[in-house]
Amino acid sequence: MCEANAYWIREGGEDLIMEAVDTIEPEGSDEWRLVGIFGDQKSIRGRIKGMRLVDHKILFEASGD
Amino acid sequence: MCEANAYWIREGGEDLIMEAVDTIEPEGSDEWRLVGIFGDQKSIRGRIKGMRLVDHKILFEASGD
Repeated sequence: MCEANAYWIREGGEDLIMEAVDTIEPEGSDEWRLVGIFGDQKSIRGRIKGMRLVDHKILFEASGD
Repeated sequence: MCEANAYWIREGGEDLIMEAVDTIEPEGSDEWRLVGIFGDQKSIRGRIKGMRLVDHKILFEASGD
C-alpha cells in the first residue's frame, strides 16, 4: 500500500501529524483534510512544503511561518 | 515503489501531466515542481485538487478554474 505519513516541518525536525494517509483534499485556503487508510480524518491548517512519495512523506508547514 | 501519476482535472476527465512522480515541491504561489523517480522534472502552475495515494494519483486543477 502506498499511503504516506504526514508531518509538520518544525525547526530542527518533523512532527508526525498522521500516519497512513491515503487522501488529501483542500478544504479552503491553506486548509487540508487528511483521510487515513482506515477512514480516520484530520483537518489541518498549513501549506504543503513538499512530498516525497517514495519515502512515504508529506510535509506541511504552518501558515505564517 | 510508491510514486504517483499527476493529472490535470479537466471537464469530463483527467489529463496525464507526468507519470511516476516521486517529489512535489512548491515553487511559489500555485506553482509546483514535479520530479520523477528517474530525475525528470516538470514545473506546472495550478492548485492541488486532491491526492489519492493508494490509487497513485495526484490531481491538479489550473489556477483560475
